[in-house]
Formats: sequence, structure tokens, C-alpha cells
Amino acid sequence: MARVRATLRDVAEKAGVHLSTVSRVLNDKPGFVISDEVAEKIRKVAADLGYKTNPFAYSLRVNRSFTVGVLIPDLTNPVFPPIIRGIEHTLAAAGYTAIIADSDSNMDNARRILERFKARQTDALILATAHRDDDLIESCIAEGYHVVLINREVESDGLSCVVADDAAGVSAAVEHLVGLGHQRIAAVAGPQDISTGFRRHHGFLKAINAAGLEQDPGLIGFCDTFSEAEGRRVMGDLLARDRKFTAVVAGNDLLALGCYDALSDAGLRCPGDISITGFNDMPFADKFCPPLTTIHIPLYEMGQRAAEAVLDDIASPGSKRHKTVLAPSLVVRASTAAP
Amino acid sequence: MARVRATLRDVAEKAGVHLSTVSRVLNDKPGFVISDEVAEKIRKVAADLGYKTNPFAYSLRVNRSFTVGVLIPDLTNPVFPPIIRGIEHTLAAAGYTAIIADSDSNMDNARRILERFKARQTDALILATAHRDDDLIESCIAEGYHVVLINREVESDGLSCVVADDAAGVSAAVEHLVGLGHQRIAAVAGPQDISTGFRRHHGFLKAINAAGLEQDPGLIGFCDTFSEAEGRRVMGDLLARDRKFTAVVAGNDLLALGCYDALSDAGLRCPGDISITGFNDMPFADKFCPPLTTIHIPLYEMGQRAAEAVLDDIASPGSKRHKTVLAPSLVVRASTAAP
Repeated sequence: MARVRATLRDVAEKAGVHLSTVSRVLNDKPGFVISDEVAEKIRKVAADLGYKTNPFAYSLRVNRSFTVGVLIPDLTNPVFPPIIRGIEHTLAAAGYTAIIADSDSNMDNARRILERFKARQTDALILATAHRDDDLIESCIAEGYHVVLINREVESDGLSCVVADDAAGVSAAVEHLVGLGHQRIAAVAGPQDISTGFRRHHGFLKAINAAGLEQDPGLIGFCDTFSEAEGRRVMGDLLARDRKFTAVVAGNDLLALGCYDALSDAGLRCPGDISITGFNDMPFADKFCPPLTTIHIPLYEMGQRAAEAVLDDIASPGSKRHKTVLAPSLVVRASTAAP
Repeated sequence: MARVRATLRDVAEKAGVHLSTVSRVLNDKPGFVISDEVAEKIRKVAADLGYKTNPFAYSLRVNRSFTVGVLIPDLTNPVFPPIIRGIEHTLAAAGYTAIIADSDSNMDNARRILERFKARQTDALILATAHRDDDLIESCIAEGYHVVLINREVESDGLSCVVADDAAGVSAAVEHLVGLGHQRIAAVAGPQDISTGFRRHHGFLKAINAAGLEQDPGLIGFCDTFSEAEGRRVMGDLLARDRKFTAVVAGNDLLALGCYDALSDAGLRCPGDISITGFNDMPFADKFCPPLTTIHIPLYEMGQRAAEAVLDDIASPGSKRHKTVLAPSLVVRASTAAP
């Protein structure tokens, strides 16, 4: 790594332009108009001289790194890659790079990664890992970081977030099942310390009430994480209770897949014996066996909106935080049928 | 971001220990033994003073960033998240952080991201984007970067890489189909400018020969990318040729899923009319409709091995490059049956 580097000044001299023009072109500074011809010439001279941006010098000068840290709880959940794509495309268009890391749903990992992100002086953070009561986020805010939450909300105010309308989504799933004739509907709910798990479950209870159905606590199970394994475990428990039900509303698509496994373990069929709905319409939800009836949320757009919020916040620090709520929609496939 | 920072010296003074001890603890320098008690005390003092590592100063001093850039061609391909997990876990255990970015299978994106990675002075690069003839990689090597390729090989020598034995995997798929009684076997091959696409297809041709079957060029189609859409297009073309075949060997699982779509478009059934095999055994391959017969490769281990190779290379620069070839295995599910 100990190479002799050409400097900005070398490039400016050889290209015959002002130092600041070279800086604007080579440091991808958004918001400056420079002719394509001049930019092209500067890039060519820089390439000839083997010039590389020195991020330490440049970052110290402008006090920006032009990177945004993106912390994901579980990269193996197919819901996140399309969200990340939306973030990356939007940031790249503004000259920013997304640095992605995966906490593996572990708070200690999240803490370590956030410290690294902050130590590397990322300009902002997009967090998909938040718990409803989250002191990691409180500390980021206290230190003055730009933070946008994605697919998560926290109890405290004053934070930008981009979420789907969880309650409306679950309500559409319950109405669909009731419309098919289901009366005994179970819930395989997500973790209640995460806003999506919490809000979807409260949406479920409200929708069951609204439909005039009996609320039977014996038909409700809670998962510790949003994973296939937890969906299988909790659905297995519900089946073992020997309480009659004909449909299940799962807290997300991975939990719904786990329900498929538990049904198969018990020698039951979906939707022949039990109908199942998911949430997210994650990639491949249409390819499962059976194709999954679920709640579609615009994942790519969620990423775009989060990146836009971060860029707004960087451009105008201290501006009003905003909460963006995206509308979900029901996608009916083959995992639901009349009881 | 313009905060007054406590320095290492402030922490050392308050904790009553030597500056170098503080540096070792707070900069996560691997390979130094410091008692838990002292480390705990230093961390507490640092937290009280609000000390943050200054990566610019530290990186300039040790000439390392303790980050490894990981470039992925398509984060929405479920094959990559488990590989990334293996990389992250292995790097984290050695005090390194993985910075992940996604090129969206676009060479210009890859070029831009690599420049950013290099400008931010990542200590090493793990690349899953390589083409067989790749001048991006040549330039990384020429500049003295530690580079490890994952799931890809290039034509030039002298690069560490971790791959699966593609030819052996495809051979197992062909033997399985021949064993079921198939004689007319088509190929929906991956892009030939990428080593996996190229080697798997050559493995296919060799295996067809070895089985004593006729090689019919009319039964071979090539995809431009490893995507469902391309699998659907090319399988649709093969079906439109009106040439009889009873099985298809797809270049990977996403192409196989595209073949499912094309069969369904044509009103045909898998495996009733045509058997299909994939490659990778990506997450959810067991959940598809029908569950996919495919070639399993150890994805998490692939990531681990790549991270180990990078760490070795950082520890002993200029040491011999090594190629790690992981053994694949056939997983028989419901997408294949006798013709």
C-alpha cells in the first residue's frame, strides 16, 4: 500500500485547469456543472498519472466520506437484497457509496458493526435492525449521526423511517381469509420487540375483531426471530394444541415457509387442510410449493425512499424528520382456498 | 460531524496505562494478549470520554484499514448471502470488517465500486464478479492489492481463488438423468465469458460424450446472464425448435427456475414432460414447485475459505497463491423422474 501517489495538483497542472475543477470531477462531488469534455480530459490525465483519490486527505478537508453505512439484520432473508438495490442505485446517482453489513440478528454484532461504521466516519446510517426500544439508535442520534430506519420503527420520536403499513396489510390478509369462509384463524406472529412483528400482530387482533370473529389466545403463537425454523417450531406447537383452525396468518414469508414445513411434518396439506398467508411478497414467493398468498410491499421503492431521506438529511442537517408509509397490497396465490 | 474528539492519549492518561496498550485494545489489533481486566478498564474510560477511533490517523499510522471489500455481481441471487456470511464471520473473528457492494452484473458499476474500494484503501478485495478475461482484476494485481476470487476463475495465473468443481457437479447431474433413462438431454447454459458458465457447459459436453449419447447442437442454448428471465427465454427458444428432449441441465438454479416458467408457458409439466436439474442448491431450492434436483456446493464454506485466503495473504504478502476446489454433491428432489 505504500505507493508514491500523484496528487490533485499534478493532475491540475498537466490538464491545465484549476485545482478545484479537478477536485470536483475526481471526487464525484455532486451538484457542480462541468462540461463533459473537461471532465473527460481530467479523467484521462488522472488515469495516465495513475492518480487515486486520497480519501483520508479528502475526507479531512470536506469532512465527508461520501459513504452511507447500511446495517441489515439478516442478508439471507430475500426481502433485503431488493431493498439494498434501491438504496445503492439512489445513493450512487448522488455520488455516494453504500457500505453494507449484516448483523445476523445479533445485537452484539450490530453494536460492533455500528462502532466500525462510525469509526470509519460514514456520513449517515440506514438501519434495518432496530428494535422498538433501541439504545444503539439513541446513541447514534446523540452523537449527531444522520440515521434513517428502514422497515422498522422505534418508540422514540424524531427519526426518519420508511415502513409499510403493516396493519393495513394484515387486515387485507384477514379479510381475504374471512371472504373465503374461514372462521378459526390462527396467528404465527413475529418477534414482538421488533416493530414489524408488533404492528402486524396488533393489526391481526384488530382485523379479527373487525370481522366479528372470536379472539382465541390458544390460536396465537409467537416466534423469537423471523426465520423458517421459528415458523416451523411455532406452527408445530399450534398444531400440537389440537385446537381446530383452518387458516394461519404468518408474520412474514419466511415464517409462512416454516408453516409449510410444519404442515408437511404433520402430514397435512396447504391449502387442502389449512390456508396460509405470508407478508412481504419476497422474491420467489410465487415459486414456492404452493405459491404463497401474501402481502406485497414495494421493497425496491422502500430502499429508494430511505436513501432519499438520508441524502436530504445530509444536504440539510437538522431538517424535519419524516416518516414514509408505503401502501401494501394483497397478492392471492395458491396457498389459500375455501376451508 | 465536526466534533471535538478525545484522543488515545487522553484515554491512556485517565486509565493510567501506556498509549500503545490503549491503541491495541481500542483498535482491535489482533494478536496481542492483554488481560480482560485492563481491556475492560480502557474500554470504560474510552466510553466515558466519548473516545472514537480516528480511522484516518490510525490507518495512516499502521497503513491498514482492517476492511476487506467484497464485490458481488448480484445480491438478489440467493447463492451469495450464505457466501457473504462465511466471509463476514471469518473476517470478524480476525478483527476485520467486510464492506459489501453489488455490481448488478454491470462492468461499469464494478469498475466504479472497485475504484471506491481502492480509494478507501481497503486492505484486500474478494471478488465474485470476475470474467474469464478481466482487465479490472489485472489492474488490481498490478497495483499490489491482495485479491481473492470466489466462485470464479480467470485465465491468468497467480491468483488465489475458491471454486466448486463445476465439471464434476455437472457430470453427476448428467449421470443421474442417464440413470433415470434419459437419452435426449438439453442444456440451458450460463454465460460463457464467466468461468462457472464456461466450465459447467464444458463439463456437460464431456459428460454427454462419456455417457455415449449423441451431441446435438440443436439441444443447446446459451443465456446472457444467470437470471430467471434468461432461463425462461432460452428454454422457450429450445421448446420452440420442436426438437425432442426429455431433460434439461440448467447452468444454475435461477436458470432452472426460468425453465420452470417456460414449461408452464408452454403448458408442459416438470418432471412429467421434462426433467430439470439446477446447480448451487441455493436457499429455497427445496421449497420450489417442484423441489429442485440440483448440485449442492458448500456456500458458507466457500466464503470462509476465501476470507482465510485473504487473511493469509495480508499476513504474508507475496506468499504462494492457492486455488481451493470444493467438492459438489448431487441432491435429488422432485424435478427429475424417468422419461
